Amino acid sequence: MLEGIEIEEGKEREDFAGFKIKPKIIAYPKSEDEVVRIVNYARDNKIPIVTYGAGTSLAGHLQCEGCILVDMKRMDKILEINEIDWYVRVQPAVNLERLNVELNKKGFFFPPDPASYFLCSVGGATANASGGMRGVKYGTFRDWVLALRVVLPNGKVVKIGEPLRKNRGGYDLLHLFVGSEGTLGIITEIWLRIIPLPQRKSYTLLVYVNDVEEAGKLIFNIRKKGILPEIAEYIDDQVVRALNRQLNAGLDESGGGAFIISVEEDYLQKLLDLLAGKKYIITEGDEAEKIYSIRAQSAIALKAEAKLMYVEDIVVPVSRLIDAIKRIKEIEKKYNIRMPVIAHIGDGNLHPNIILDDPVKAQEIFEEVAKIAIELGGSVSGEHGIGVQKAKVLAEQLIAHNGKEVLKIMKGIKDLIDPYHIMNPDKFVELAYKLSEKNEGSISR
Amino acid sequence: MLEGIEIEEGKEREDFAGFKIKPKIIAYPKSEDEVVRIVNYARDNKIPIVTYGAGTSLAGHLQCEGCILVDMKRMDKILEINEIDWYVRVQPAVNLERLNVELNKKGFFFPPDPASYFLCSVGGATANASGGMRGVKYGTFRDWVLALRVVLPNGKVVKIGEPLRKNRGGYDLLHLFVGSEGTLGIITEIWLRIIPLPQRKSYTLLVYVNDVEEAGKLIFNIRKKGILPEIAEYIDDQVVRALNRQLNAGLDESGGGAFIISVEEDYLQKLLDLLAGKKYIITEGDEAEKIYSIRAQSAIALKAEAKLMYVEDIVVPVSRLIDAIKRIKEIEKKYNIRMPVIAHIGDGNLHPNIILDDPVKAQEIFEEVAKIAIELGGSVSGEHGIGVQKAKVLAEQLIAHNGKEVLKIMKGIKDLIDPYHIMNPDKFVELAYKLSEKNEGSISR
Repeated sequence: MLEGIEIEEGKEREDFAGFKIKPKIIAYPKSEDEVVRIVNYARDNKIPIVTYGAGTSLAGHLQCEGCILVDMKRMDKILEINEIDWYVRVQPAVNLERLNVELNKKGFFFPPDPASYFLCSVGGATANASGGMRGVKYGTFRDWVLALRVVLPNGKVVKIGEPLRKNRGGYDLLHLFVGSEGTLGIITEIWLRIIPLPQRKSYTLLVYVNDVEEAGKLIFNIRKKGILPEIAEYIDDQVVRALNRQLNAGLDESGGGAFIISVEEDYLQKLLDLLAGKKYIITEGDEAEKIYSIRAQSAIALKAEAKLMYVEDIVVPVSRLIDAIKRIKEIEKKYNIRMPVIAHIGDGNLHPNIILDDPVKAQEIFEEVAKIAIELGGSVSGEHGIGVQKAKVLAEQLIAHNGKEVLKIMKGIKDLIDPYHIMNPDKFVELAYKLSEKNEGSISR
Repeated sequence: MLEGIEIEEGKEREDFAGFKIKPKIIAYPKSEDEVVRIVNYARDNKIPIVTYGAGTSLAGHLQCEGCILVDMKRMDKILEINEIDWYVRVQPAVNLERLNVELNKKGFFFPPDPASYFLCSVGGATANASGGMRGVKYGTFRDWVLALRVVLPNGKVVKIGEPLRKNRGGYDLLHLFVGSEGTLGIITEIWLRIIPLPQRKSYTLLVYVNDVEEAGKLIFNIRKKGILPEIAEYIDDQVVRALNRQLNAGLDESGGGAFIISVEEDYLQKLLDLLAGKKYIITEGDEAEKIYSIRAQSAIALKAEAKLMYVEDIVVPVSRLIDAIKRIKEIEKKYNIRMPVIAHIGDGNLHPNIILDDPVKAQEIFEEVAKIAIELGGSVSGEHGIGVQKAKVLAEQLIAHNGKEVLKIMKGIKDLIDPYHIMNPDKFVELAYKLSEKNEGSISR
């Protein structure tokens, strides 16, 4: 059945976060038709399918043993850039940085910018509803995907959504598929909304703060004043020192970390009013790029000094940021470990980085951090997703915030679309449901 | 079971578009708990439920015979305006205009602006994923609802989504419920994203065009130049004359209609370059408000001169606008009727208004118009929804563009969440599915 499709056997891989991928075979389809044949083969032979973009997922989405790994890398064409309808149509393996290079040439861009943008595939980022620094202003992939072509578990090819800004064509299935982590089908084509490159001058400010509380109050005031930043980031004192050591960043180490914010020129004066008495620098152009790049390399600087590091990804309401970071610091003290914080502070998305050589202990600490998000009305994942790593805390969150019935509906949707149980099975919602059934007593709150 | 709940019997209503509502009883719940009791009663007694906001739906969403009409008007509180987390939490019957008045006082606003904003309820607009003139820049309710509390058909109360900008908490069910036209549950609480009031000066231009082709080319060039308008509207020559007759609008009748566009000041020069040689006026402040208001009253002016008028609502890709309007004009000629066009031309959303005293003929013409949208890669509804009126053409669209399997999945989701078949049954997706099964031969393309 797989004649003519490029296949590899006996090859193992590891994803970006170190999860093991041990497929029975790796298939490299060159066309949607080949994808259909692979799906039919897997279904007929009851072999799980895991779809591979660029391997940059962080929560075990790709982990498998004995699966068919469908590596999409041969499907990497930019099919159409439409300058009137403002969309781009691509195959899933298109690299996100390359996409923006091509769009920029025509005066457009695609806003969501996951930290892995230079590595990741558009298909992977769609399956993960990926976010990034620009999330505070532009949201995530969820806000920018218009339509998909998908090979369903039953082998049928469908188009989900339409490349239209307004469309009331039945229930919105599009958002079910965006962020579904490869559990509902294989994406073979993607329409993304694009917009003209920003026209206004913007400034990037690096503000030194004395402590987390000051950073938190600053973002509260920015929001209350109605300032909508392009990005609003916070790195704590440990991150500042790591950046100085690893990249000679030349940052001031005397305080409690740094706040990085970009605003369009007409917000600048309002922002400066809020910064009275603080230590800061204003930059633009190349200098601003340098600061953006320092922030972008924060996790790399931390990782260079750690044997093992678990990048966390919780979200809390912006108004609960101070509480959240303080509680993270308490956990750090309690376990006597290092857990430097990098935060998309503008949208409440925190990345505490657990630096610890003991994976079992790290997972335990991680779950304690996730509980902070749940208790403060947040979410256990803002942009990295659930995979296998966060399934338990996802179940806890859904039961605490939404009702067990919501988890049941999610499981029902998985069963409706994948009754064969072949599409990246036993992860994400399915695993969360299974764990909640086992432990219902202890998970219910 | 309904003791203590305010009930009316034997009252009939008509919605905004003239569809008949003949409920067995009308219930006016004052709390979520009362909604739960009504749903349980309906389920136990196998009586369909129709949820009523302000009755402004346009495609027969509320039509019923012997149903329980759940009129939400007693649940109309604005519960919380959060100036840090940038959301507002409301009960479903809050009037949309009133909401914006309250938000404006605190320096915020909620962008989507359906033409019925002064009448409609937030709950109804959420169930309809309503759009409006600002759609070209801000999208629809789909882009602005963060979370919902919903009473499901099984009587369980759940929260769907979270009031967070980033959240990867399982499959995205939120967008299933937004735009589900009351078929999946009763909304009892809504979190909407809000943003600061626009800070930049903007200009509104009224541009006279010679014909549709000129209007279309103008919007193509605006898009190609990367101008993102606040609104971009077109009214044809018939609408211009009706506005002059009914409202003494003082518009120039010599051409082929008018193009109305608002842009922020830094786009103005680019726009003026495109308008060289054309007849136009530039306004701001009160004068701009006057033009906005003339546009807003276009449908009212048309209706004042018609006995019966069917407001259509198709969308086409912006690049196909000229083709679409030309084909609408051909249908007008073919049937020798009047079908003036009001268009949210910036996002491809057209409202041809079928003026005709024969409802059966009007529905036939309407379906011919809908086919234009299907053939040009658009959608049979941009913002008004499907109800009963558009179920047949919805089925045609989904089968032509997306695959019959997509309609099957939608039907499967309805059955999953409402196995009792009580929540606004036999409309929308369910009716589309039924019609497609009956006529599969003729609908398949």
